[in-house]
Amino acid sequence: RVNQDRLMKGIHDTCEWGKGERYGEAETETGMSRLSLSDTDKQARDWFHETTTALGCKVHVDAMGNQFAVRPGLNNDKPPTYAGSHLDTQPTGGRYDGILGVTAAVEMLKVLNDNWVETAYPVGVVNWTNEEGARFPMSMVSSGVWSGDIPVEKAHNLKSVIPANDTATMKSELERIGYLGSTPCSWESTPMAAHFELHIEQGPILEAEQRRIGVVEGVQSYKWFTVTVKGRDSHTGATSFQHRADALLTASQMILASHKIASKHGALASTGILNLRPGSTNTVPGWVQFSLDIRSPVDETVNKVEEECKAAFSALASGDNILDIMTGCTPSSRHCSVDWRTDFVSPATHFHNDCITCVQQAGADLCGEEGGVKDKDIGAWGKFMTSGAGHDSVYANKRCPTSMIFVPCRDGVSHNPAEYSSPEACADGANVLLGAVVRYDKL
Amino acid sequence: RVNQDRLMKGIHDTCEWGKGERYGEAETETGMSRLSLSDTDKQARDWFHETTTALGCKVHVDAMGNQFAVRPGLNNDKPPTYAGSHLDTQPTGGRYDGILGVTAAVEMLKVLNDNWVETAYPVGVVNWTNEEGARFPMSMVSSGVWSGDIPVEKAHNLKSVIPANDTATMKSELERIGYLGSTPCSWESTPMAAHFELHIEQGPILEAEQRRIGVVEGVQSYKWFTVTVKGRDSHTGATSFQHRADALLTASQMILASHKIASKHGALASTGILNLRPGSTNTVPGWVQFSLDIRSPVDETVNKVEEECKAAFSALASGDNILDIMTGCTPSSRHCSVDWRTDFVSPATHFHNDCITCVQQAGADLCGEEGGVKDKDIGAWGKFMTSGAGHDSVYANKRCPTSMIFVPCRDGVSHNPAEYSSPEACADGANVLLGAVVRYDKL
Ligand SMILES: NC(=O)NCCC(=O)O
Ligand SMILES: NC(=O)NCCC(=O)O
Repeated sequence: RVNQDRLMKGIHDTCEWGKGERYGEAETETGMSRLSLSDTDKQARDWFHETTTALGCKVHVDAMGNQFAVRPGLNNDKPPTYAGSHLDTQPTGGRYDGILGVTAAVEMLKVLNDNWVETAYPVGVVNWTNEEGARFPMSMVSSGVWSGDIPVEKAHNLKSVIPANDTATMKSELERIGYLGSTPCSWESTPMAAHFELHIEQGPILEAEQRRIGVVEGVQSYKWFTVTVKGRDSHTGATSFQHRADALLTASQMILASHKIASKHGALASTGILNLRPGSTNTVPGWVQFSLDIRSPVDETVNKVEEECKAAFSALASGDNILDIMTGCTPSSRHCSVDWRTDFVSPATHFHNDCITCVQQAGADLCGEEGGVKDKDIGAWGKFMTSGAGHDSVYANKRCPTSMIFVPCRDGVSHNPAEYSSPEACADGANVLLGAVVRYDKL
Repeated sequence: RVNQDRLMKGIHDTCEWGKGERYGEAETETGMSRLSLSDTDKQARDWFHETTTALGCKVHVDAMGNQFAVRPGLNNDKPPTYAGSHLDTQPTGGRYDGILGVTAAVEMLKVLNDNWVETAYPVGVVNWTNEEGARFPMSMVSSGVWSGDIPVEKAHNLKSVIPANDTATMKSELERIGYLGSTPCSWESTPMAAHFELHIEQGPILEAEQRRIGVVEGVQSYKWFTVTVKGRDSHTGATSFQHRADALLTASQMILASHKIASKHGALASTGILNLRPGSTNTVPGWVQFSLDIRSPVDETVNKVEEECKAAFSALASGDNILDIMTGCTPSSRHCSVDWRTDFVSPATHFHNDCITCVQQAGADLCGEEGGVKDKDIGAWGKFMTSGAGHDSVYANKRCPTSMIFVPCRDGVSHNPAEYSSPEACADGANVLLGAVVRYDKL
């Protein structure tokens, strides 16, 4: 069993680097703002390196800055079974997303050492770079390069989402903070026997159903787009509605249309970034660009929502009142243009049965019940789940057996400073992670 | 009569400072980006000072950086009759808005000098600071201080609209570029006998009706607001629509609602600035702030639109589907809050009959017709108009007789790099400005 206090100390000590907004009085009631490859991310990486080295691991860094710490086994002619996640956060993120997965994996190393456990094969801990996609807008990009799905040049050349303030690319930042490793970033250079990832659920289900552990069977499908709407800059006081090509009014309709279309299909569509030009109170914006994130457990549904949004956005740009909301307004005689760019595609993922079983058995063991048969008789302690969020496990799963463990988080809140999981929930998850890795090693 | 070539050279030479986006092949086919109190605005101000001094004027600068150049008359015991406008531009503005008014006033000085004209009383040229309100978000703020409507401290403390990139205040920038003048900014320290302003129409009417001159009788009413919507940051993949408090989705509905409400009242409502936080593809924004600019020729209508928008925005923030656009979507169980701040109020303005008559007579004289009786029999050359845009003449009119002259601009486009008025139209306007000032001086 893990040491709960030590685990929590690991989380909160490392959260000194990149501390974010305060949301409560207690010392640890602040969020996190540790964007990938920032100075504070470097501090967290240095901690990872020093701590795992001190625990007897050999650590290497690849061309995407992914850090791999390996604890030898009795037999080292097979690749390690890995546990891990990521240390970067959202700009206004919390203390658990990613961080719990890495610190629990480090805690696993400590438990193995404390108990003189010799695993059959090596065991590893991994910290993946820029999982969030919050600074460089492809989520899980570095596990994606590792799996061979994303070309390393494309990843290296990714620019910050705020080019006006942050002109860095991933490569320039990797160089700047000293984490452009010499190992090629690939599953061939750094092979894995399996990949286990502990994560907070980031949704409300486990808490609502009072379950301790989510046994994650897969991850829903998603696509990210950048939509650009072009109209015409004009004077807000001297230009009648009829003479405008208002890119923001049009973009507002598009955001509502995407919400309606996704609702109809039981899918999600969200806009998290919106920029406009020129940005003056008395100028109708002639240029608006926004992100669109479409998700559903079914690939086909994501594609349908994308197609319907494309048709709807074209109609809206041409001035068609397809939402009927402009009824009663003078139609504009000038129209906007719309352009789509696909930034990221992550099809639906189904994890490996062996790993799912290891997680289920470790959960049942922790919670004092027999692990039932998958999909049928899991105890009241757990639930089989599909992740709404993407994780590095999606790409890991392409090259090695993979599964994930979810623990409840308060009110389902994530990507928010107030994100919170209780110490007991964190320890539950860390115990299942430890149990699953040891089980897989035996397997 | 003015010298058309010299006038156009004055415009295009000064437009070298702060040149903006190119929109065509010809040398002068670029817009302007000369934000108030920027380095390029300083260059334009230095030109104003040197040129008017060389023409025999005494120049002084007040505490808002307003520049006043005075050409003595036969009798100097009464205040000067002024012509002028502003040299600052929108971030993506054109070569005529404001610039035409100042360069035509300088051309007026040259014509008076060339012809050895001695006016009865002094004649002045004024360059008002930050008329656009594009950098510091109160339009006409420095004429507003001059008239006593805006406290100088409030104006001095105005912050840039992009505080993240530009931490300056008006005062710090006035000091930095050396234009914090020692004369108090007030109509008492710098009195005016009258104020005439030549401007491009910034709308399509004169062009469409093929009229050469707009005789401006007044300016419509407007108010500027900053609206802040607060929701909750959450994960775009793991948060159902029901569990969201999506500040951007709500703001999009508000923008559409304001458009509908304004349409109903024959008014205008426009959003030119929108900022959001945190700004990440996979985080539902918990904070959105946007500008709202409401206009109508009638004060009461502006107030009605404001009230109806306030009610509608509150309803939308509380999750009411008042536009019926969310029909078919799962209603959200969490709501947003909304907060309004009033940034600027400019009631409807009615210019002074004496000045309107001087403009009308100068127009009729230029166009070879008798100036008819106001409001009734103006010739085909002109039109009585109300300005859709605000101008420094609004505040000037509070302390001295004032009127304006409009000339047509291509396609009614303004606040756009492609803003254009023909050399003939510019010269027409400058001739009427000259004629109106000379007439008022006689009066
Ligand atoms: N877990 C998590 O927040 N991942 C970021 C990628 C995503 O947007 O789902
Ligand atoms: N003329 C002009 O563009 N003035 C700026 C103030 C306004 O927004 O009307």
